[in-house]
Amino acid sequence: MKPSPQRPYHGIIPPLVTPLSGSDQLDEPGLKKLIDHLCDGGVHGLFILGTTGEAPSLSHPLRRKMIEHSCKFTEGRLPILVGITDTSFIESVELAHHAAKCGADAVVVAPPYYLPPGQPELLEYLNDLIAELPLPCMLYNMPPLTKVQIGSRVVEQLLDNQGIVGLKDSSGDMSYFHHIENIAHQAGKWSVLMGSELLMMDSVLSGSDGGVTGGANLFPRFFSAAWSAADKGDLETVHRMQKTMIHLQQLYSIGQHASAGIKGIKCALETLGICSARIAEPFRAFNKPEKQAVAALLDTLHQDPLLAADFAALASS
Amino acid sequence: MKPSPQRPYHGIIPPLVTPLSGSDQLDEPGLKKLIDHLCDGGVHGLFILGTTGEAPSLSHPLRRKMIEHSCKFTEGRLPILVGITDTSFIESVELAHHAAKCGADAVVVAPPYYLPPGQPELLEYLNDLIAELPLPCMLYNMPPLTKVQIGSRVVEQLLDNQGIVGLKDSSGDMSYFHHIENIAHQAGKWSVLMGSELLMMDSVLSGSDGGVTGGANLFPRFFSAAWSAADKGDLETVHRMQKTMIHLQQLYSIGQHASAGIKGIKCALETLGICSARIAEPFRAFNKPEKQAVAALLDTLHQDPLLAADFAALASS
Amino acid sequence: MKPSPQRPYHGIIPPLVTPLSGSDQLDEPGLKKLIDHLCDGGVHGLFILGTTGEAPSLSHPLRRKMIEHSCKFTEGRLPILVGITDTSFIESVELAHHAAKCGADAVVVAPPYYLPPGQPELLEYLNDLIAELPLPCMLYNMPPLTKVQIGSRVVEQLLDNQGIVGLKDSSGDMSYFHHIENIAHQAGKWSVLMGSELLMMDSVLSGSDGGVTGGANLFPRFFSAAWSAADKGDLETVHRMQKTMIHLQQLYSIGQHASAGIKGIKCALETLGICSARIAEPFRAFNKPEKQAVAALLDTLHQDPLLAADFAALASS
Amino acid sequence: MKPSPQRPYHGIIPPLVTPLSGSDQLDEPGLKKLIDHLCDGGVHGLFILGTTGEAPSLSHPLRRKMIEHSCKFTEGRLPILVGITDTSFIESVELAHHAAKCGADAVVVAPPYYLPPGQPELLEYLNDLIAELPLPCMLYNMPPLTKVQIGSRVVEQLLDNQGIVGLKDSSGDMSYFHHIENIAHQAGKWSVLMGSELLMMDSVLSGSDGGVTGGANLFPRFFSAAWSAADKGDLETVHRMQKTMIHLQQLYSIGQHASAGIKGIKCALETLGICSARIAEPFRAFNKPEKQAVAALLDTLHQDPLLAADFAALASS
Repeated sequence: MKPSPQRPYHGIIPPLVTPLSGSDQLDEPGLKKLIDHLCDGGVHGLFILGTTGEAPSLSHPLRRKMIEHSCKFTEGRLPILVGITDTSFIESVELAHHAAKCGADAVVVAPPYYLPPGQPELLEYLNDLIAELPLPCMLYNMPPLTKVQIGSRVVEQLLDNQGIVGLKDSSGDMSYFHHIENIAHQAGKWSVLMGSELLMMDSVLSGSDGGVTGGANLFPRFFSAAWSAADKGDLETVHRMQKTMIHLQQLYSIGQHASAGIKGIKCALETLGICSARIAEPFRAFNKPEKQAVAALLDTLHQDPLLAADFAALASS
Repeated sequence: MKPSPQRPYHGIIPPLVTPLSGSDQLDEPGLKKLIDHLCDGGVHGLFILGTTGEAPSLSHPLRRKMIEHSCKFTEGRLPILVGITDTSFIESVELAHHAAKCGADAVVVAPPYYLPPGQPELLEYLNDLIAELPLPCMLYNMPPLTKVQIGSRVVEQLLDNQGIVGLKDSSGDMSYFHHIENIAHQAGKWSVLMGSELLMMDSVLSGSDGGVTGGANLFPRFFSAAWSAADKGDLETVHRMQKTMIHLQQLYSIGQHASAGIKGIKCALETLGICSARIAEPFRAFNKPEKQAVAALLDTLHQDPLLAADFAALASS
Repeated sequence: MKPSPQRPYHGIIPPLVTPLSGSDQLDEPGLKKLIDHLCDGGVHGLFILGTTGEAPSLSHPLRRKMIEHSCKFTEGRLPILVGITDTSFIESVELAHHAAKCGADAVVVAPPYYLPPGQPELLEYLNDLIAELPLPCMLYNMPPLTKVQIGSRVVEQLLDNQGIVGLKDSSGDMSYFHHIENIAHQAGKWSVLMGSELLMMDSVLSGSDGGVTGGANLFPRFFSAAWSAADKGDLETVHRMQKTMIHLQQLYSIGQHASAGIKGIKCALETLGICSARIAEPFRAFNKPEKQAVAALLDTLHQDPLLAADFAALASS
Repeated sequence: MKPSPQRPYHGIIPPLVTPLSGSDQLDEPGLKKLIDHLCDGGVHGLFILGTTGEAPSLSHPLRRKMIEHSCKFTEGRLPILVGITDTSFIESVELAHHAAKCGADAVVVAPPYYLPPGQPELLEYLNDLIAELPLPCMLYNMPPLTKVQIGSRVVEQLLDNQGIVGLKDSSGDMSYFHHIENIAHQAGKWSVLMGSELLMMDSVLSGSDGGVTGGANLFPRFFSAAWSAADKGDLETVHRMQKTMIHLQQLYSIGQHASAGIKGIKCALETLGICSARIAEPFRAFNKPEKQAVAALLDTLHQDPLLAADFAALASS
């Protein structure tokens, strides 16, 4: 599956963590290292300021800084998608303009996440918002956190909105995903991306464009190869890689609570020498026993031949 | 029940709507009229920038403006509590400092509402945040929107935090409320306020300090009298007023979806000549049939003798 | 509030546990002792085969046996309400006929609890079922377990069904309760009973008929007195009794999981010498540490003067 | 993938509807026709008395009758799996013994579905129950209806229970499914079957054994071919068949509420001349407009070449 003007995004587009060096402080060297690590690792785009990027926890000045530095450090090597999801319409629009000014390629929008809009309200909101955006927009379905699904009727009514280039689904509901994929691709439109890591290869086998997978912050070569195997329909490789993928998921259950995934990835990134493990309030980085569990898991993963290329690159960087 | 240094807030503290005259524009004359209406109506405090105040939908500059003008228009007639709930710690702290500078009396904090913190994370967050606040803090339990309850164990562990002056509960879960009330009042501490309108008198009969009731934007005399009847244990009056209260609830189901309550109150405020019905994005004000339903309901309510004082005041203003 | 032909049930109607002596075996002496304990304790009716009675866990022959023996042991001292909730319409009707034959006074019906009916389906179901019943029917709202609320629109449409004598609400949602109470009592109909123990006195203060409170299996005198205080509007006594009520709730959180309440009550009944603590599969009675926690709690409760009459009666029985 | 002693079930195992000719009455000719239709249609087993079989709505005598007649009509052509899920342990065991006596091959068990067991309680329950069963047992994960997931820790602890032959998952949560599949197949055990129709081919591509798909009541040839294409890794065919599968899903949203799927399948079966559309209480069969919508959908499906073999067989029967 090649990207096309109608379906411009494909492959692995990692949702970058936001490296932090202090309260409300960007870890700039860490961010540079992370971006180099991903560009060298063969991913197909960068998605900043998403859930994994802790966007809602960051002050607006810090979000703007993150956009500026990501664009600067990427130097056009990869397309950059910027999360502008916010409960305030005005703030979303302003972030989008800032992203455009900095040279980003697209923005990503989930529904406002405090008072949940009904489906007709959501449709109005998305049409109103997209009309104000200076960049193409990717929809982001994330009902566990926004309390609202971008329903299939709304998706149908948005198909003609020329400002939309795709949809990323993190609902974990593969039946929903198939319905959306079918609606969009029947119309010959939209990149449809899977946000649930363990379902990325299933989704690509079924015809989706790619995945926004948190683990790709750590192992970009592995995730790119996994996408590629699925994209080619190489089932044998897919089966082997899925075992590694399942193994990797242990990283997300070392912590408890909804923050466990972000904490796990950031802790592993620090352990691997990429960037700081610091987490923005209201959360805190892993404590010592949790860090040791992460290190122990990384040791086991190190022995997996499917991750050898990533570990070799990490060692030499 | 008189307020005390340990339980400083009591009575009816309406959660003010934020009157808007345009996109990202405060309806200043409307706000002034609303505040006069409430101060004259005998309520016991003003809570701005809560859920009814659409705080998450407003830009940060508009939130700051709302704080400034509310303090200015109130002229010290009533204590002002300012919602500073935000997914970003930094933004919450900055709003609190702005509120202090403008002369507000306290701030109100619900848990960050994107990625839900676990209970130990919530405890850390609240202690960390309150340490940074220049004003006393009222906790705000709102699990339908934040996805997280401020659990009774967390409440117990917060009792010794001198920065906290109370808790407002909008869970709708009266058993939870009784547990919290019991924990706080056994310790001789905290104003405990009910955020569910229909449960306000129940809660006051059972010993709570008062209520944060959206309908008091419209009928401050009625709500203050209802609180007073419950506070005195005048059950006969309570029963009569509860019938009116139930009647009033129809205002909140003219619209559909979670926004119905705010839309209903703002539409009624416009119909009664107080301020604009405009709603911040992502929502829109009622359409014509909905407006007519509000007007029809207000006509029926006009005939209720228990609301006569409020309607008379509205007519003469 | 006196019972009337239109509102025939009032006061405390304990949801009896089903005492068991072995797998699928009724503890007959235990049941007799429990019924005597309750009849002597001044409650106003007996509700068997509800949630606390573990009805869904019991075989149909055992449910029939429980009905027979309860009617026999009660000897007409109190009205008996029999839970006939079942996912099978046919089985519900047969249980109702058995209850009528044994001399029970009414049946209690919650919605079928596997595939949840929509509201119009629920209305049809209830009308169809009630038409087949030989006894008056009390509705039982229990959404946490049935996954469906008996919505206020359905309640309105059922008001004219002469087979219905009331509604018991265990939703824990006091706003819902007030709406239902208002609908039913405006029509001058139905006993409306509260199923959430901690809300019983609130509900009676607000005009409800009484409560179906699990703790009354243990302390019938206390619960009857609590109802009576609320029914008379004696707020001072209500406040004191509510403190004991909150203390009592600790019994329900010694265990974990949804079965904790039933296990706690049965364990306490065994400790107090009334009947066996045995639980029907899929659950098991408390283990030793949990039993010790129950005994320790009972020791503390023993010192509460408001429970003195109950403990004295238990000691002399 | 061939079945093995360790993974004995594979392919398409339709969850049969229970044809009814009246209240509590089995439509015996309809059942015979349905079974012949499925045996001729190339499916790999029959699962009776599941959710689609409306088991919880049927009286126990009718459930026993359904087992007897299904075994009789099948005449050993296919293995028969019998749902014995019940809130009563005793009733489940008795159904299992009846199934064994009638010649069924295995039983299927979901957790008791009234009071939801905690995970340790569920583990105890399953071990206790399986010890009493005369037939091999397939676990059935159905959290939307039972309110409890058979968690991966419980699955791990059940792997050594020799009474278990597999797990059917209807959670719709494909990440869960992959975890369970991985646990079971690492151990070289259990048939793992997908219960969500639209995910059947994904699951088989990823290594699962097959599917329990309601639509196979109607189109056994199509579903068997779809399974076979996925089992062989023929992605091109899978893609074409998935489009038909998505089209078919429209049948399940003609009705509203959770009963829509069963009503849709039964209505289509009647329209196609197989068996009665009657539904057990508390539900009712489709009304006229809904029937017309089913007929219209069948007309469209009739034009799909992938369903031609099924329609031809139906025409000639």
